[in-house]
Amino acid sequence: MSHQIITLTTDFGLHDSYVAEMKAVILSICANATIVDITHEIEKFNIRMGAYVLASASPYFPKGTIHVAVVDPGVGSKRQPILIQTKRSYFVGPDNGILTLAARKEGIRHIHKITNRKLMMPKISNTFHGRDIFAPAAAHLANGTLPAEFGPEIHEIATPKFAKIVKKGNMLVGAVLFIDDFGNIITNFGEKELELMNMEGILNIKLENTRLKLKFCKTYSEVKSQKPLAIIGSHNFLEISINQGNAAKILKATIGDNVTLYPK
Amino acid sequence: MSHQIITLTTDFGLHDSYVAEMKAVILSICANATIVDITHEIEKFNIRMGAYVLASASPYFPKGTIHVAVVDPGVGSKRQPILIQTKRSYFVGPDNGILTLAARKEGIRHIHKITNRKLMMPKISNTFHGRDIFAPAAAHLANGTLPAEFGPEIHEIATPKFAKIVKKGNMLVGAVLFIDDFGNIITNFGEKELELMNMEGILNIKLENTRLKLKFCKTYSEVKSQKPLAIIGSHNFLEISINQGNAAKILKATIGDNVTLYPK
Amino acid sequence: MSHQIITLTTDFGLHDSYVAEMKAVILSICANATIVDITHEIEKFNIRMGAYVLASASPYFPKGTIHVAVVDPGVGSKRQPILIQTKRSYFVGPDNGILTLAARKEGIRHIHKITNRKLMMPKISNTFHGRDIFAPAAAHLANGTLPAEFGPEIHEIATPKFAKIVKKGNMLVGAVLFIDDFGNIITNFGEKELELMNMEGILNIKLENTRLKLKFCKTYSEVKSQKPLAIIGSHNFLEISINQGNAAKILKATIGDNVTLYPK
Repeated sequence: MSHQIITLTTDFGLHDSYVAEMKAVILSICANATIVDITHEIEKFNIRMGAYVLASASPYFPKGTIHVAVVDPGVGSKRQPILIQTKRSYFVGPDNGILTLAARKEGIRHIHKITNRKLMMPKISNTFHGRDIFAPAAAHLANGTLPAEFGPEIHEIATPKFAKIVKKGNMLVGAVLFIDDFGNIITNFGEKELELMNMEGILNIKLENTRLKLKFCKTYSEVKSQKPLAIIGSHNFLEISINQGNAAKILKATIGDNVTLYPK
Repeated sequence: MSHQIITLTTDFGLHDSYVAEMKAVILSICANATIVDITHEIEKFNIRMGAYVLASASPYFPKGTIHVAVVDPGVGSKRQPILIQTKRSYFVGPDNGILTLAARKEGIRHIHKITNRKLMMPKISNTFHGRDIFAPAAAHLANGTLPAEFGPEIHEIATPKFAKIVKKGNMLVGAVLFIDDFGNIITNFGEKELELMNMEGILNIKLENTRLKLKFCKTYSEVKSQKPLAIIGSHNFLEISINQGNAAKILKATIGDNVTLYPK
Repeated sequence: MSHQIITLTTDFGLHDSYVAEMKAVILSICANATIVDITHEIEKFNIRMGAYVLASASPYFPKGTIHVAVVDPGVGSKRQPILIQTKRSYFVGPDNGILTLAARKEGIRHIHKITNRKLMMPKISNTFHGRDIFAPAAAHLANGTLPAEFGPEIHEIATPKFAKIVKKGNMLVGAVLFIDDFGNIITNFGEKELELMNMEGILNIKLENTRLKLKFCKTYSEVKSQKPLAIIGSHNFLEISINQGNAAKILKATIGDNVTLYPK
């Protein structure tokens, strides 16, 4: 396998040497790996945010890509290191839910616990399995080591809880899934739910306690600069945005906030 | 073309998966591309800042490099996606001025609109042309697709307005072009203008309403720590700096501020 | 040398084009280099922090790696550009202490001043030797240029001063060496000193003026969420942490603070 792609998703930030240590370990084992950062700015310990971001990016990578994700508040405790093989790719990380959303989207084939000490760093710290277990696992996988060599197959993995959409009378109640760096408020409503509401270009929406009547746009510039709008974003979720402004700051939205859709 | 270099300049930040999605698309089409981030921290929607940063970095890349730049407040609207071929390299992005400064510096040969749907992602979102149009265009270009295959040739492109230097009596009035992460205040005065003023080592300067008399230095350490100085920076513009301090914060400078040079 | 690894450690930040200019210069000279960022978020001008981070990451890279580190408040002044060859790798940067800690750990073999103008950029700015001297030196080294070709051998280099551990009565007084992005407070106590104190699971510690009695843990999750603990971190130093919290913020610790260990 030449130029095997290995992606990294963590909450380590870019101030310290942690991410570089993972890359160093990968390149020491598999010199030809192409390492791509998804992000290292997941909010500290926020497994759901990590799961969302990984699941957003992974579909765009080529088949056979190896995704390593480490948001790991339970590092060193009894949560298991795992390796998931899907129909398209591989996912390596702690069994705390961070991998689940992305792996399920692709169709899970096999899950293995990572227990084979020969495929880890010789000395394993209690605080940094990203470097000592997950990076070497990804690199050995890139070198052609088979999933079954890492440890026994298992059949259950942790699942992060994401808000479901609930019907209340003629309303739909969902939630803010994510807020991106532009301040776009990404909800868990998809095109399906919007069709159900049959809105004809205007969205009646409540964001926590704020009622909004938003133009349902195809581009941000359909409304004037600094004006709010509704749009289907690049991951096919309904987003509340402000043209050239930061919607989350102006509308004071945070992840997990309730979002209610009303009929016209 | 082996190891074709593709650079990325955006205002996407590094918190989200957007940059990784662009890289995923590039590597799916051109597995051997070497992707280099110029920066993803352009101030949101600030086309001029993007144009300045791209034009600062691009001259140092090898011939044949493909530069993708996406600061794109008008995404999905009528602004065109374009591809510029210069004497040295290629520039891919929206026709809103972001590419113009860098491309003109190198000498523009041909400009093509990007209209060929076969060279885009199968599904094109309205909000993320970086992933759906510009990344695939760069990757196909790296694979050897000719510029003319992307769409019709055009002859006009948008030009960002940068402050000009104006002579007022015996003074020269310019502006703050950029403030870097060290807080260096980069003006639009070059060595030519400074020679005109015939200053002999001391710069009489006004930054908005603050009069300064600065030593014109060759190195920061010619003045004491925390003291201001004038220096020709690494892109050959006059910079107002503070040795081991943040000049922009201390002198309260922002991009666009007036800078006036007085004779000695 | 195919796919020679070149690492970069700087205080340049990621907002500007400076890091990209260094990469552009490297790839112009050595197209096959694999460039790995250690970090560009060293606190501005903080040579000791740069030295610590570089020395943390470098042991994990393969033999023959070329490490470039540029935290360089004296750029353009009389401090020398140097190249250090160790038993494992190469270090390139200013002779101000930034390279010393990492290089000494590996065992220094030869040190050369970089004086050969043919191995630098044709035009050398006074403010950006990272691009004009250090990046080309690393790339030429990657291409096989011998250390002796860069300039004369020297035998003395600058050494950054790190806090020593001092015995006072039955106490040990050390210092805060580093604070990572999680807020972990990394001290200069190693496992050796902790054994000396014979603590049996409880650490009596004073952080500046705050007395703490901390459980000495193997994993963060041995204490409840938001509770403080003591742990040996991934670089084998004693760390004061808070499970899923930011210890440095909550305990108001900064680099250089005194840390006193008391017997049980």
